[in-house]
Amino acid sequence: MRVAFMGLGIMGSRMADHLVRAGHEVTVWNRTRSTADAWAAEHGARVSATPAEAARDAEALITMVVDGPQVEAVLLGPDGAATAAPAGALVVDMSTIAPATAQRLGERLAERGLAFVDAPVTGSSPAAESGTLTIMAGGAAADVTRAMPLFEAMGRTIVHVGPVGHGQLVKVLNNAVAAANAVTAAQALVAGRAVGVDLDRLVEVMGAGSGGSAVLSLKAGPMLAHDYPLLFKTAHMLKDVQHCLDAVGAAGAPFPAAAQAREVLAATVGRGFADDDYAALVESVEGFAGVRL
Amino acid sequence: MRVAFMGLGIMGSRMADHLVRAGHEVTVWNRTRSTADAWAAEHGARVSATPAEAARDAEALITMVVDGPQVEAVLLGPDGAATAAPAGALVVDMSTIAPATAQRLGERLAERGLAFVDAPVTGSSPAAESGTLTIMAGGAAADVTRAMPLFEAMGRTIVHVGPVGHGQLVKVLNNAVAAANAVTAAQALVAGRAVGVDLDRLVEVMGAGSGGSAVLSLKAGPMLAHDYPLLFKTAHMLKDVQHCLDAVGAAGAPFPAAAQAREVLAATVGRGFADDDYAALVESVEGFAGVRL
Repeated sequence: MRVAFMGLGIMGSRMADHLVRAGHEVTVWNRTRSTADAWAAEHGARVSATPAEAARDAEALITMVVDGPQVEAVLLGPDGAATAAPAGALVVDMSTIAPATAQRLGERLAERGLAFVDAPVTGSSPAAESGTLTIMAGGAAADVTRAMPLFEAMGRTIVHVGPVGHGQLVKVLNNAVAAANAVTAAQALVAGRAVGVDLDRLVEVMGAGSGGSAVLSLKAGPMLAHDYPLLFKTAHMLKDVQHCLDAVGAAGAPFPAAAQAREVLAATVGRGFADDDYAALVESVEGFAGVRL
Repeated sequence: MRVAFMGLGIMGSRMADHLVRAGHEVTVWNRTRSTADAWAAEHGARVSATPAEAARDAEALITMVVDGPQVEAVLLGPDGAATAAPAGALVVDMSTIAPATAQRLGERLAERGLAFVDAPVTGSSPAAESGTLTIMAGGAAADVTRAMPLFEAMGRTIVHVGPVGHGQLVKVLNNAVAAANAVTAAQALVAGRAVGVDLDRLVEVMGAGSGGSAVLSLKAGPMLAHDYPLLFKTAHMLKDVQHCLDAVGAAGAPFPAAAQAREVLAATVGRGFADDDYAALVESVEGFAGVRL
C-alpha cells in the first residue's frame, strides 16, 4: 500500500520500520526534517517537506505524534495532509488524543471525503520495536478492514472496539485502570512497610494470588528500588487519565479510582517526576503517608 | 504426625481430608458434633467431644474456624485445646482473624509452653478440595518448618512471610488490594457503559494489557452478567479489608484505596449481597453512579 507516515518519534520510527519491511511503499514526514532524512536514508523510504506532499498520492495516511493539537495541525493545518490526500484515502491516527478530538477529526475528515480510524496503541517502545503492539481501532468496519494489513505489520493484538473515537476511549479507560491499580499497589507497599511485613514476601504472595495485576508485576520492583526505568512517562499517564475523566464526566458518570490516580500522578509531576516512568507515583504515595519504603 | 483438627466447615473438611490422605493421624472436633461424626466415619478418623480431648496427645493442633473469638474459644476457652495439649505442641491457626489477635494468641500460647504459627490461606474451596491452597505462614522458622509436612499436604504455594501475626497481615493486605482492584474494575465497566464502549472489547483489551489483574479475569464476567457464583463472600471480604485498615491505621499509616473498597463493600452488604461473591460490589458501584451495566 502507498502510505504517508507522519511522526518519527520513539514509537513512530519503529512502527514505520515494520511497514517498510512488510513491503509497503512508505513516504515519511517529520517536524524535524533531519530526523526524517536520516531515517529515510537508512530504510530506503521517501521523505517529504510537508504533510501535504507526503499525502499527495497516498492510499493511507498515518499520524503518530504527541497530542490532539499536533494531529489536527498535521492533518488540517496549512500544508496539512488532508488538504492534499486523494478522495477516498484512509486516515489512521495512532497517537493518543482526547476521544472527543478523535470524534471531531472523524467528522471534519468525512466532510473532505476521507475515511478515518482512531487506533491508539499500547505496549511502549519495546513492543513497537518488535511489532507486537496492542492496537485498539475505532471506525467503520470497512475502514478498519482496509487498515488491517498495516496494523498486522505493526501489532500483535488488534481489536476493533467500535466506531470512531472508541479506540481512544478504550485506551484511556485501560490506562486509568492501570494507573489506579498502580496507586493501589504503591499504597499496599507503603502500608506493608508501616506494619512491618517483608515486602518481597508480600509482593510474592500478591503476585501469585488475588492481589496480582499487570502493573504489580511491572512496577513493584521499580517502586521498591526507587528506580524508574522508563516505559511510560508519568506526564503521559496523567494526560491519559485526565482524558478518561473528561470523557466519563462528560457522559455524566463518576470514576473515583481514576480521580484518585489523577491526584497522585499530578502530585508526582509536581515532585519533579514528569519524565520518569509512572512507577515514580510511589514517591507521592510515600510523601502523603510520611512513610519511606 | 498426630494432629487435632478443629473446625470442619467448607474449608476445614477439605483440608483435613488431605491430612488423612497424607498419612497423618487425625482427630477431629467440630462445634456441631454430628458433622464431625459423619466426616470421621467417612474418613476413618477419630472424633472428640471437646477441643481439649482432641488435643490431649496431639503433636500439632490446627484451627480452621470463622473468626478470632472462635479461635480464642476453641484454644483457650473452657475445654479449650490449649488447656490439654502436651507441652511443646505446635498450634497452627489457619482461620482468617485480626493480625493483632494472632499476635496476642501467640503470646498467650507461649505462656503455656505451646508454639504458634498463624497460617491463613487463600484460594477458596476449589483449592482446598484439590490441595492447592496458598498458605501464608507467620512464626518462628523452626515452628514453620515443623508445620511444613502439614502445609504441603494442604497447599501448593507456601510462603513463610515473617514472625507470628504476619501471615494475617500479608493475607489482609493482599485481600485489600484484590478488593480495591475489583472496585476499580467495576468503576471502569460502569464508566465504559456511560461513554458507550463495547464492554466485552474493553475487558479483552484490559485483560491483554496494562489494565489486567487477577480480579478482572475472575470478576468481570460475573459483574457483566449480574450473576455472582460464590468463591468468596462479600461479608468475608469486608471483614478482611476492615482488619487491614485496622492494622495499617494502628501503625499510623493510610490506605485510601482500601478505605474506598471498604465503603463499597459495606454498601454492598447493605444492599443484601453479604452472602454473595464479592463481584456483587458492582451493584453498589452501579448504584452510586446511577448507571446499570
